Amino acid sequence: MVTKMTENLQVKGFKAAAIKAGIRGRDRLDLALIICEQSATAAGVFTTNLVKAAPVLLDMERVAAGRARAILVNASIANACTGAEGLAKAKRCAELAAAELGCAPEEVLVCSTGVIGEQLDVSCFEKHLALLVQSLRPEGFTEVSRAIMTTDTVPKTAVREVALDGVPVRLVGLAKGAGMIAPNMATMLAFVMTDAVIEAGLLQEMLAEAGSRSFNRITVDGDTSTNDTLLVLASGLAGNAPLVESSQAAEVFRGALHELVLDLALQIVRDGEGATKLITIRVKGAANETEARLAAETVAESKLFKTACFGEDANWGRIIAALGRSRANFDQLKVDIAFDGVVMVKEGLGQGKEREAEATKVLKQREFAVNIDLHQGNGTWEVYTCDLSIDYVKINADYRS
Amino acid sequence: MVTKMTENLQVKGFKAAAIKAGIRGRDRLDLALIICEQSATAAGVFTTNLVKAAPVLLDMERVAAGRARAILVNASIANACTGAEGLAKAKRCAELAAAELGCAPEEVLVCSTGVIGEQLDVSCFEKHLALLVQSLRPEGFTEVSRAIMTTDTVPKTAVREVALDGVPVRLVGLAKGAGMIAPNMATMLAFVMTDAVIEAGLLQEMLAEAGSRSFNRITVDGDTSTNDTLLVLASGLAGNAPLVESSQAAEVFRGALHELVLDLALQIVRDGEGATKLITIRVKGAANETEARLAAETVAESKLFKTACFGEDANWGRIIAALGRSRANFDQLKVDIAFDGVVMVKEGLGQGKEREAEATKVLKQREFAVNIDLHQGNGTWEVYTCDLSIDYVKINADYRS
Repeated sequence: MVTKMTENLQVKGFKAAAIKAGIRGRDRLDLALIICEQSATAAGVFTTNLVKAAPVLLDMERVAAGRARAILVNASIANACTGAEGLAKAKRCAELAAAELGCAPEEVLVCSTGVIGEQLDVSCFEKHLALLVQSLRPEGFTEVSRAIMTTDTVPKTAVREVALDGVPVRLVGLAKGAGMIAPNMATMLAFVMTDAVIEAGLLQEMLAEAGSRSFNRITVDGDTSTNDTLLVLASGLAGNAPLVESSQAAEVFRGALHELVLDLALQIVRDGEGATKLITIRVKGAANETEARLAAETVAESKLFKTACFGEDANWGRIIAALGRSRANFDQLKVDIAFDGVVMVKEGLGQGKEREAEATKVLKQREFAVNIDLHQGNGTWEVYTCDLSIDYVKINADYRS
Repeated sequence: MVTKMTENLQVKGFKAAAIKAGIRGRDRLDLALIICEQSATAAGVFTTNLVKAAPVLLDMERVAAGRARAILVNASIANACTGAEGLAKAKRCAELAAAELGCAPEEVLVCSTGVIGEQLDVSCFEKHLALLVQSLRPEGFTEVSRAIMTTDTVPKTAVREVALDGVPVRLVGLAKGAGMIAPNMATMLAFVMTDAVIEAGLLQEMLAEAGSRSFNRITVDGDTSTNDTLLVLASGLAGNAPLVESSQAAEVFRGALHELVLDLALQIVRDGEGATKLITIRVKGAANETEARLAAETVAESKLFKTACFGEDANWGRIIAALGRSRANFDQLKVDIAFDGVVMVKEGLGQGKEREAEATKVLKQREFAVNIDLHQGNGTWEVYTCDLSIDYVKINADYRS
């Protein structure tokens, strides 16, 4: 039912553009605008970090109204840890965009990504917003996907098409991020535009679920950011009958949204800072879901496991040691660990050199899964992670200098 | 009162030796023995990892009796995740040593460090134990400190001397470890020998406290090991009056033990895998001690913070972002952060480029502190960590190959 399309990022009712605004004095696309030609249904999920950037604080308030006309986003400066001045500047930038667009300032959502602790120069917005608005066009999303990049090495986009009761509906997604956080550079942002007719409460509920099953299951460095923002705008121009909770059409849309958002999330892990591999950590047989999550996340974030993956070393001792400190309960003599289908550990014991050689072949792949069975109960969880490479350290040690 | 001495590792009642036993087929010192000429008071603290190596399981049982004669320790193989066979082998090795020494097997503690999941070859012990016992001598600790090294680049020893009611008492410590865990290689082991007269219950209580204030406050990679073991043996040959809880002499001894163990712990962080810096994370003003600990440990283990330290980048945004996800409560507009005495963040806001330049000078030192005040309550905590370098990844990606 869900068609995956990547060539065409247009979606009914939306226009976008990006421009070089010199936000931090660099010659690059760094300011972008996404607009809906009519008031769109809006929903958002945000960082759980106690330290929230100014635009996050503003958007949390604005998205609660369930309507929006535009997303104004800048790269290079995160507008985080900038106090009352930073919040006033975020509001001022939204006002400037609203004036150009002829809408209420409250209908403009703002996002920032980049260095923490530096103030935005509002004059960059004043100078460039008129031209940015003039440049808006249906095919502008490709530029936007590039303008929001920081340590990203590739732009991240995804498209899905579904039929809701026979009516075609599109979803277009853009994301940036290369560390879950890298507060200076690689803060995660994602925007989804759709033409579906859907009311805000249902959209928010679906987005929260999709986020928890995608962006909240990925880790590059175990950090969470001050700026993480996932927004969805629905123009309602597809002409489908308004989606009703639990209807078949709503479930089709939910599935497409989840698939789209997961696609974007996995693109972030694949492009993780320095990453050479996408690794799925799949835990089953935990006492409950909470313990499955503890186990999966502890393995996914273990520096030792991640460096072993980079070295293509089927070092299961590091996996079982991470499980042992995860606070999940299990009997070490019941644990099974497989790399894809290759069982390396059975009932807590290694299965020998031959099996290790097979597992090493799995590790040489660009993508593989570590399947862990704790044989304790029915709890399951899945996390997507990447390896920890020499380039990760180079990227994060050398930045800003 | 406490004298620090490093030249002479001898202590009354103890002998030690190390030998090349070919534990994993390598030409290196890899088997060591420490003995007390009479039954010593013994105490120990062990890894909290749910996955415990066979020697840990054995020692936990044996040290509960409060008496021991010897510590037999091998490098290269951790005897972890080796099941019933591994436990039987640990017992067998202790029996072999006991037979040579003429003591009960239960009086022999065993420790292993090295690769997880491989079985020990008991014949290495059978072949070499007689010669090892013949080689025992009071000045043998230097060899032992080398025999227990794995990814360590330097042996780790410490000596303290105190007068207890006028009677000189010595404490000698040995440690190994370069990752908190690196289950293949850098598992933490530490042994303290003293000639003090002290009963087992008090010694255990003092050791647990000293451990919690030293080894439990260091982190290299955030992992905990299957084999972590800290043992103390007291020969009772110093001739001091038996230490009585809360007496002045007991407090002097407690202070010396804590100082010695902290000295060893900091040597481990300084020699952390790939580490170039020793960094103290000092949190005060947290709501309570638990939250101070969460805050300090989250910063100390943040990959982004640690790589910034390696890059000598005074990147306080990464510190405040780590604090924000630590689950400690605070108001981001009240947080102060200083590098040594240089205040970089005051009430949540950066203090400008000049201050940053000063802080960068602090970061260029080999040792410095990050002082964080959450202004929330009276909770304090201190953690010792190191930077995350390119060599960390090289060491952990390349090992075993």
